[in-house]
Amino acid sequence: MSSSPQASRHAHASGPLAIICGGGAFPLAVAQAARRAGREVVLFPVRGFAGAEVEAWPHVWIAIGRFGRLTSEMRRLGCRDVVFIGNVLRPRLRDIRLDWTTLMLLPRVVSIMRGGDDHLLSGLGRIFEDAGFRLLGAHEVAPEILMPAGQLGAVAATREELEDIEVGRQVLEITGPLDIGQGLVVMNRHVVAMEAAEGTDLMLARVAELRANGRIRRAPRCGVLVKLPKAGQDRRLDMPSLGVRTAEGAARAGLAGIAVEAGGVIVADLAEIVRKADEAGLFIHGLAPRGRAS
Amino acid sequence: MSSSPQASRHAHASGPLAIICGGGAFPLAVAQAARRAGREVVLFPVRGFAGAEVEAWPHVWIAIGRFGRLTSEMRRLGCRDVVFIGNVLRPRLRDIRLDWTTLMLLPRVVSIMRGGDDHLLSGLGRIFEDAGFRLLGAHEVAPEILMPAGQLGAVAATREELEDIEVGRQVLEITGPLDIGQGLVVMNRHVVAMEAAEGTDLMLARVAELRANGRIRRAPRCGVLVKLPKAGQDRRLDMPSLGVRTAEGAARAGLAGIAVEAGGVIVADLAEIVRKADEAGLFIHGLAPRGRAS
Repeated sequence: MSSSPQASRHAHASGPLAIICGGGAFPLAVAQAARRAGREVVLFPVRGFAGAEVEAWPHVWIAIGRFGRLTSEMRRLGCRDVVFIGNVLRPRLRDIRLDWTTLMLLPRVVSIMRGGDDHLLSGLGRIFEDAGFRLLGAHEVAPEILMPAGQLGAVAATREELEDIEVGRQVLEITGPLDIGQGLVVMNRHVVAMEAAEGTDLMLARVAELRANGRIRRAPRCGVLVKLPKAGQDRRLDMPSLGVRTAEGAARAGLAGIAVEAGGVIVADLAEIVRKADEAGLFIHGLAPRGRAS
Repeated sequence: MSSSPQASRHAHASGPLAIICGGGAFPLAVAQAARRAGREVVLFPVRGFAGAEVEAWPHVWIAIGRFGRLTSEMRRLGCRDVVFIGNVLRPRLRDIRLDWTTLMLLPRVVSIMRGGDDHLLSGLGRIFEDAGFRLLGAHEVAPEILMPAGQLGAVAATREELEDIEVGRQVLEITGPLDIGQGLVVMNRHVVAMEAAEGTDLMLARVAELRANGRIRRAPRCGVLVKLPKAGQDRRLDMPSLGVRTAEGAARAGLAGIAVEAGGVIVADLAEIVRKADEAGLFIHGLAPRGRAS
């Protein structure tokens, strides 16, 4: 079950892996992991979102709205497999210049953009597949970026904290199909913050603020950030993520720890996250998915 | 079905109405409505939460943790019916000095405070009833503070906005039993903000901020604030509320309007809310509860 033979088979069958790169630390983590697995890669950084560090790799800058150019470049370079990774906030329509291919797809794109995130992403996925590409999940080409199971740092969750994790998981299992968000903060079995469009970092900043202004009056080192993939979410397109900023935000919010689904959340720089968490006295827990042993 | 004969019967049967007053505009609105209905009232403002304007009324200042003093004062003044109204944030334990009665109740209070809001409030309700008082809802003594049904201001919700309201209502019906919060913001059928410990005003401020920093990129006048009472919530203890600040916050968040459950939300100064909403071009809609005609 080593990934290398499979990866090199891909290399022969499908040419280089196309990685469409949004912002954040994940695109390069995925590129490095795919290269380590023996796969040739070409990055397609999205202008306005991806950072300049992608230029150390084979790359072609792309713009939202230029789907025709993207697909012709991918074909020219012999790419058949494509991975989406990194943050791309919903673009403002007036910032977009459309090429002809995109223009033809426009009615479909508009109908997609009216819905929630899941709808948006799965719609874009189908468009790629209809154009003859194979959409893969970042975790399929770079399984080592997936969250491992169990206690990861020096700090273990207490019994009460495990109860808070369980409350958070139950709530997220119910709210998942509503396509609201992937994370929440539970303190003493009570949901004090629920993530939606603001994202995890801003939700944690809010908890820090609610503590500072006395609206949340709990002892420090109380509460758990819980993140799970939404039910029915296409994991090729929108895996929840855990990064160093998440650990820093959880520490500033005075939480006791972080619990995310093992295998269901991608992690950039796990060693640094664990170091920060240990330093702040936070636990980091990989939750076994339901139905398997924890 | 006029409320006056019933109110004066209460006046004879139960002495003055005790109104335990937290912060905000609601305590005096309820006191005025109860007095208009012919009921004698005594205010019990909670120190640190209620404003000085209560002192124009018959009143006895009280402190959290002094349940013995509160009940003996209520008995001395001949009160049997009691209403809780206004904001009382979760107190910090170190700010509380307990009297003996409260001390005896402490194990029960601690067990109550570990749960969510519903648990907290229904627990406190039972403690009052066990002490021989009758807990009434503010809406029972002052039905005119309840949200009316239908379009209230000059602006009507569009068909798309009615769809957003329906999405919000469906999500809140599912999340209600989870005891998270009573409000959310929906834009183009997508939940962009979900209220928890921060309350409605801060949630609306967040939406304004997400618009300002480009994280929400929608045209202005898009989106609806929806508020419903949580399912199973004890309406004597925690009715969701709508105030002038809510209308101002919705306008700053660039929303199209506000929809709250008719009969399920209390409103302070409806005329002023409608004036502000008209000025900002917001609709204000009272949603008929499910199963009745809208």
